[in-house]
Amino acid sequence: MSPDESSDADTDRDDVSTRRLEAFTDGVFAIAATLLVLDLSVNTLGPAITDDAGLWTALLHQSHSFVSFVISFLLLGLLWSIHVWEFEHIVRVTRPLVLLNNLRLLGIVLIPFTTSLSSDYPELLAGRILLPINFLLVTALGLIEWSYATRPSRRLTAGLSEAGIRSARNGAIVAVVSSVITVALAPFFGPWAFLAFALNPLADRIPGLNRPRRGRA
Amino acid sequence: MSPDESSDADTDRDDVSTRRLEAFTDGVFAIAATLLVLDLSVNTLGPAITDDAGLWTALLHQSHSFVSFVISFLLLGLLWSIHVWEFEHIVRVTRPLVLLNNLRLLGIVLIPFTTSLSSDYPELLAGRILLPINFLLVTALGLIEWSYATRPSRRLTAGLSEAGIRSARNGAIVAVVSSVITVALAPFFGPWAFLAFALNPLADRIPGLNRPRRGRA
Amino acid sequence: MSPDESSDADTDRDDVSTRRLEAFTDGVFAIAATLLVLDLSVNTLGPAITDDAGLWTALLHQSHSFVSFVISFLLLGLLWSIHVWEFEHIVRVTRPLVLLNNLRLLGIVLIPFTTSLSSDYPELLAGRILLPINFLLVTALGLIEWSYATRPSRRLTAGLSEAGIRSARNGAIVAVVSSVITVALAPFFGPWAFLAFALNPLADRIPGLNRPRRGRA
Amino acid sequence: MSPDESSDADTDRDDVSTRRLEAFTDGVFAIAATLLVLDLSVNTLGPAITDDAGLWTALLHQSHSFVSFVISFLLLGLLWSIHVWEFEHIVRVTRPLVLLNNLRLLGIVLIPFTTSLSSDYPELLAGRILLPINFLLVTALGLIEWSYATRPSRRLTAGLSEAGIRSARNGAIVAVVSSVITVALAPFFGPWAFLAFALNPLADRIPGLNRPRRGRA
Repeated sequence: MSPDESSDADTDRDDVSTRRLEAFTDGVFAIAATLLVLDLSVNTLGPAITDDAGLWTALLHQSHSFVSFVISFLLLGLLWSIHVWEFEHIVRVTRPLVLLNNLRLLGIVLIPFTTSLSSDYPELLAGRILLPINFLLVTALGLIEWSYATRPSRRLTAGLSEAGIRSARNGAIVAVVSSVITVALAPFFGPWAFLAFALNPLADRIPGLNRPRRGRA
Repeated sequence: MSPDESSDADTDRDDVSTRRLEAFTDGVFAIAATLLVLDLSVNTLGPAITDDAGLWTALLHQSHSFVSFVISFLLLGLLWSIHVWEFEHIVRVTRPLVLLNNLRLLGIVLIPFTTSLSSDYPELLAGRILLPINFLLVTALGLIEWSYATRPSRRLTAGLSEAGIRSARNGAIVAVVSSVITVALAPFFGPWAFLAFALNPLADRIPGLNRPRRGRA
Repeated sequence: MSPDESSDADTDRDDVSTRRLEAFTDGVFAIAATLLVLDLSVNTLGPAITDDAGLWTALLHQSHSFVSFVISFLLLGLLWSIHVWEFEHIVRVTRPLVLLNNLRLLGIVLIPFTTSLSSDYPELLAGRILLPINFLLVTALGLIEWSYATRPSRRLTAGLSEAGIRSARNGAIVAVVSSVITVALAPFFGPWAFLAFALNPLADRIPGLNRPRRGRA
Repeated sequence: MSPDESSDADTDRDDVSTRRLEAFTDGVFAIAATLLVLDLSVNTLGPAITDDAGLWTALLHQSHSFVSFVISFLLLGLLWSIHVWEFEHIVRVTRPLVLLNNLRLLGIVLIPFTTSLSSDYPELLAGRILLPINFLLVTALGLIEWSYATRPSRRLTAGLSEAGIRSARNGAIVAVVSSVITVALAPFFGPWAFLAFALNPLADRIPGLNRPRRGRA
């Protein structure tokens, strides 16, 4: 599709471009993020509400669901933006990379379910711990995928210095560590344990999205 | 992926292209718009319908749901087209912009839920007011995101004059004002309050989509 | 994003590219098509199935739902491919075109609901007629959108001869006529009325997708 | 949109680019994969769980659903990556190809339903056999689509040698054979029959994604 591909086309291509992997990933993230709202269902507001006081009370009882929804949505957004940054630099896709990416997406798809657990059973250990474990699974697979993709001998990346690769790997490790801390704290603090993500210096470690540069011209 | 990116690639890139942010946004809008239809469920038609009169009556009882569905769908389409117009001119994405965009999408994802509230409790204040408040949240975040992106020192836009930026900001402010008016009128007029959107001069203020120009050649 | 856009960028752009309208449309079609399967739910198989005979019988009772699912999926696919063909030739998008396209998508989003009606109330007039009416709504809006986009003074298309525009409009008219016939026959023949789509010469009228041409090189 | 299209535009185009077919396909796969998680619903955990032991037990009872979910997700990912590889080489789309692709997607959309059957009725023949039959349908349609697209007289592919086409067809045949074996073994081994996919030499036959090559520069 791009000009340089046609010059490549004299032989059977073994690798594919990253475009469709990115499209599939964006779709899965968008759907998982949107399915989160199904938990905030009017059906769960309870029986026969007929006055305003009743409706406000019922909505207030859903406040725990709402907190879970906001946490999971924002963390999904964070995990998605990490994927975006990584694939700005990954230019080719091999079969093991597709498999690693699919496993990572499997973890993403589970998040609406573990979020429901967290909002329906806030007082039980399983309800508190399975959502953090889910995020740990995804961040760990993200670290493995990034380590696989950036091994120099594989030549899957472009325009990324040694320091950039190391720095991004450090960022991925910090994300895993934040998940581990959240798992450890969740039995005691419930959803507040996710503050481990907000407090960790992840944002500064990833040579990320925050410093605008000169235009493309 | 585009030719100019390879020339850029001599150093680690700190910003990412807008392509995937747009894809993620389109996905979330498309899913939120489609989930609206789940409210029009045959399951809510009531028990044991066996003749035509019964079915037409049951459908007629859903007419309020249908009105809510149409309003939310059309407003989602309007908000989406504003996002499209904005990102025709935003060419680079920084990390705070991703966060602002994700918060805006969080508001979008809530719309199927607040639409359900509006269609299930049309007579209650909470049922009438939470959908307009949801739209206010989204338009306010849209204004903040646009203001952030168009600060000249950030150099995130291209091909947009000072007048164009001002004009679009005015359009975004009008959208916020329409939402505020809708919030104020909804307790009295229910869904009719959304006419504040139809009546406002938004369409003329945004240097928008309505005047075809010369072809690209 | 494409090279010719930067040369265009000396003034504020009033029209936007078709890329995101296509992405949003593809998303809505994909989700509507996939939501159709929610009608084939194991929850509706009935109570307490414990042996094979019971399960096969229950599945057989869903055969009407399955027929509705297949019809709606294939027609959605047809309507989608018409949209694809049209937007191969539409190169710019104005605000009224966005509105017309959103109204068309509103009709698409309703199809899972009218399909449910059709499969749950196959013997009632409302159950038989609302799905064909839904398709009529979509094909009629498609005709209006195409007529709008191809008016020469609007200059929204490229690479399309007068004959091509006329021929595609004829195809769109045939699609509307097929829908009208289906609406007329559905009260008597139920889903079989959709054979009006299969039999009509639509496939030959649209200067469509069926004759491969020389490669792009 | 690409430069070579404008030079093509002197006459009405009969074929369309593959871009939107790929976007629609990616969307359907992403949604089908994500809908799988709806089966893991907290609503099916059973009545009134109030202690940790009860919740762990209920989750354990869902383990069969979880296994079905993982199998279907990974196989969907495999089928998607085969589609990606094929359309790296298919450069133009004709109307019959759209129809074949839509039929293949119809099979994909059914997978969340047949997966539910498999996880709700693991002991019954229909529960065991319909998911493998669903995969057989999809792999068979994939073989037909690939055979159609690669007939040299149709000139729909680019940059693919005779040997590459043959090798990919062999891979597609192996996928069909794996499905047949799974169908045959499923009555006896349930979901373990899907190991036929893991064990078959599919991965080596498709000239696939596994050997990284020189960068694009």
